[in-house]
Amino acid sequence: MQADIAGFQPTRESIPPPNVNYQQKTVPGLPPNAHPLNPFHFILRAASVYPDKLALAHPDVKHPAFYTYGVWAQRIQNLAYALIQAGIRPGDRVAVITPNSPMIADAHFGVLAARAIVTPVNTRLTPPEVSYILEHSGSKLILIDRDFTHLIGNTNIPTIVCHDTGRAGDPYEGFLSAGREFSAEKGWAGLDVELDENAGAVLCYTSGTTGRPKGVLTALRGSYLAAIGNAVEGQLNRESTYLWVLPMFHAAGWTYPWANVFACATQITMRSVDYPLIWKHFLNSGVTHYCGAPTVQIGIVNDPAARPLPRTISAVIAGAAPTAQLIGQLEQRGIKSVHVYGLTETYGPCTRCYDQPHWKTLTLEQRAKLMARQGQSFATAQEARVVYLPENEDDQELRDVPKDGRTVGEILMRGNIVMKEYFRDPEATRKAFQGGHFHSGDLAVWHPDGVIQIVDRSKDLIISGGENASSLAIELELSSHPHILEVSVIGRTHPKWGERPMAFVILRQEHESKWKDNHDAFAAELIRHARTRLPGFACPEWVQIVVELPKTSTGKILKTNLRKIVAKL
Amino acid sequence: MQADIAGFQPTRESIPPPNVNYQQKTVPGLPPNAHPLNPFHFILRAASVYPDKLALAHPDVKHPAFYTYGVWAQRIQNLAYALIQAGIRPGDRVAVITPNSPMIADAHFGVLAARAIVTPVNTRLTPPEVSYILEHSGSKLILIDRDFTHLIGNTNIPTIVCHDTGRAGDPYEGFLSAGREFSAEKGWAGLDVELDENAGAVLCYTSGTTGRPKGVLTALRGSYLAAIGNAVEGQLNRESTYLWVLPMFHAAGWTYPWANVFACATQITMRSVDYPLIWKHFLNSGVTHYCGAPTVQIGIVNDPAARPLPRTISAVIAGAAPTAQLIGQLEQRGIKSVHVYGLTETYGPCTRCYDQPHWKTLTLEQRAKLMARQGQSFATAQEARVVYLPENEDDQELRDVPKDGRTVGEILMRGNIVMKEYFRDPEATRKAFQGGHFHSGDLAVWHPDGVIQIVDRSKDLIISGGENASSLAIELELSSHPHILEVSVIGRTHPKWGERPMAFVILRQEHESKWKDNHDAFAAELIRHARTRLPGFACPEWVQIVVELPKTSTGKILKTNLRKIVAKL
Repeated sequence: MQADIAGFQPTRESIPPPNVNYQQKTVPGLPPNAHPLNPFHFILRAASVYPDKLALAHPDVKHPAFYTYGVWAQRIQNLAYALIQAGIRPGDRVAVITPNSPMIADAHFGVLAARAIVTPVNTRLTPPEVSYILEHSGSKLILIDRDFTHLIGNTNIPTIVCHDTGRAGDPYEGFLSAGREFSAEKGWAGLDVELDENAGAVLCYTSGTTGRPKGVLTALRGSYLAAIGNAVEGQLNRESTYLWVLPMFHAAGWTYPWANVFACATQITMRSVDYPLIWKHFLNSGVTHYCGAPTVQIGIVNDPAARPLPRTISAVIAGAAPTAQLIGQLEQRGIKSVHVYGLTETYGPCTRCYDQPHWKTLTLEQRAKLMARQGQSFATAQEARVVYLPENEDDQELRDVPKDGRTVGEILMRGNIVMKEYFRDPEATRKAFQGGHFHSGDLAVWHPDGVIQIVDRSKDLIISGGENASSLAIELELSSHPHILEVSVIGRTHPKWGERPMAFVILRQEHESKWKDNHDAFAAELIRHARTRLPGFACPEWVQIVVELPKTSTGKILKTNLRKIVAKL
Repeated sequence: MQADIAGFQPTRESIPPPNVNYQQKTVPGLPPNAHPLNPFHFILRAASVYPDKLALAHPDVKHPAFYTYGVWAQRIQNLAYALIQAGIRPGDRVAVITPNSPMIADAHFGVLAARAIVTPVNTRLTPPEVSYILEHSGSKLILIDRDFTHLIGNTNIPTIVCHDTGRAGDPYEGFLSAGREFSAEKGWAGLDVELDENAGAVLCYTSGTTGRPKGVLTALRGSYLAAIGNAVEGQLNRESTYLWVLPMFHAAGWTYPWANVFACATQITMRSVDYPLIWKHFLNSGVTHYCGAPTVQIGIVNDPAARPLPRTISAVIAGAAPTAQLIGQLEQRGIKSVHVYGLTETYGPCTRCYDQPHWKTLTLEQRAKLMARQGQSFATAQEARVVYLPENEDDQELRDVPKDGRTVGEILMRGNIVMKEYFRDPEATRKAFQGGHFHSGDLAVWHPDGVIQIVDRSKDLIISGGENASSLAIELELSSHPHILEVSVIGRTHPKWGERPMAFVILRQEHESKWKDNHDAFAAELIRHARTRLPGFACPEWVQIVVELPKTSTGKILKTNLRKIVAKL
């Protein structure tokens, strides 16, 4: 990477003026002792303190690009002016359609600097899905990567195409340069300050396993506080190097685009989840942190390039609980798991499973069992609790379940790290906020130590012989079988028990041949394994070996699709 | 400390109930996605996540006391209820008069939990000064340490005396226990939530080198954000152990009472600045962080117990710039200096001198010169700038001085880390907030790298032959003389030049004898030393060797007193 950095020249318009001033306009009437919280401000401080530090590296492309904090801040300023010149007004939505790249990192600051709302679009969606999002969000402008223009077809919305080169001649670079010209060197002081810290920040559409995606609108105040929470929980600092494995379009990258800049860390963007490349950076680029769902972590530890690391890397894991096996495999390679939990509606992570000093004396399996729990409210989050499910629609009274580790209820959140609203959907917003809390839809128990543990999404719970069987708990136990790489469990209709669990299993490559023509024997073995660990009603009745599992664009297993398969059996 | 911990039993009422719940009341009407920022909340999270972790240790007294987060939180809750039972209502002031001890740590949370305002009183003041503060603040209740009751005489204000034992029979313990009884186990949910994040948090009286002390009232929002800023800048985390060298009554302990709890760190309180004791803790108690003015740091490095430490300790230094010699001496012992700057009006530190990667190649003296600067706005602070001094009273236009490292102006701050007001002094508040910024009264230059450097308090500037000579800059240069322990420079009337600098010097013990009967020779030598480093108008005309320097109760040198001495010469 070092040689590439030395060989890269940012465009002329990316170079800040020699007398650059990182202070925003002084707004008459703004009190001296209050300033609206806004995560975009982090770039002003980082650029002021560490102008020459590497902020953003994009090395693994035909035209690698590397930006110091000083240069990156200028590009962000240029973007803000370019957006304003293009007619973007406060509160307007700007769609961004790109894999991880400098452009989407720019947007998380530049769009906010223009007082507009970032609308990141998942690049794995289909054209009709993208079309729905563009229409529903009312996006006024699209920033799109050259490789994904097919997603938008012949849209009427003004579009800036990025060739991801960082060089003059790239239309996105032209757009930035025009912004610099339009600014007439008025600099940061020429941009209006957003006075409302509750103004919209990011509009993310949930990948929703069923129905139309919903637009989750977050606020500036929440983004500021969530980003600080993530920086603190991850212990990010100016020595950190963060590798973008998680797509930045996913829940605003869990606020890490801002958390990293708050910490004055270095960020490396990769266009795709490429395991050998991840290992190249782990081994050679000083990576200290990354985020990813367990399914990505499984890919990382099982890549042939995987080897013990010279120093510890922190893996922030969310989306599902990491298994004992995964935690063990990560640790063997020098990767420390931090298990967090949250939803797009909670700016990504808002709880963390805090490891306790006395866990050090436990076995890996004991420790992993404790670590698989979703935890407690993290640094800047206010409240996460588990309440009894309402008896009926009108039942709005919230009663906490006892902290007995057994009684199942729904996880509710409150506080600054809860979204502003579902965009243009007051009915869904009202429903989600019933009783003055956000309803996560996740079912959980509350342990005596105050830790919350998800038993399932409400719709994934299996009612087997009148008992509630958590598909998640079953998956955790089954995954301890040494031949299993990945497993998903759903409920299947059963004449006697109502429902019974069915397991879909991907075998580890090295064990595939053994069971190749012997699926029944494997099923029998796995059911035996389950019986030693689970109550009878939670043991799978059926086991099916598969080559892959259906997943959403963000790596979550699509149980809806598995249910469709089962319905046809 | 370990044996003491094992031998300590908190009072029965300090033990939380087995089913303790750390959630506050759900307030009807409070939106699901916003919660007023309040640093008191940090204790709820820390106690929920690490109930059994050592939170607060008070080991160096006849009756040592040690509190886990779980027990401490219960004591804080008891205090809140006890205050309410004693008639304390939202916005009331509660005076706390004690050296560093658990009581004042309790107060920073318990008083806020009762929605009242902490008024810490400097224990080094005289009875008339304390009387003025109690009257001006309108304190409704006094929490006072047994050793300081002489400061309040026969006050009419209800008073709780603490014997600092942590044992049953201590009146303060009785007060806490009564709070537990009054709460009737309603717990945290029985306390009203403060809905206004701009409500008062702490009322600190400045030790003011001239005139009546002013009451600096800070807000909850600012306290929350400043504490997070300090935790982040100090890299405090759950592995940290913070030693209370700084008095907690000084600017709310620079918000560290909250910063440490935000980080889930351990705090050790010491009743006085006792250098051998400090070294005992450095060497045996796992201390990782402490704060103190340079004068205290000088005492630490020069103590006979000083020796190289097995692992690095962070010293957060403010109040004056550390000299090259001090930074070097600290480093020799394994203590890393973090130079920050601020005032009581900015919640303590609000800027930091960030060391840069390329400084590693510099000599200690070069590096120390750069590090002695006051720096740039820190994590959660908004803006610190240097503007031209107003030409007259009505001149309110703020114009930044050029970043040339030469032009002198005044440091101004804006944002969340600026006090709410001067309590009951609208005229002083108006004056301090002219032009929508807080006027620090500190004169500074702005360097090309964006770093602010104080040249002097406006009243300490020496006008020598029409030139502005910074007493601070002169002190920094004189202190490089190897025989000098501490030095202070003021302006003295001069028939020809108007003013000329006069230096008051404390010699290092090992050099005292050499100059004992030869003050004139030392003066000549020091003036020669100065001529090689300073312009003529800034060289001291007079040098006086003294045994000690007059200081405020918080360790700042009282130049007013030096001026009085000079006036009589």
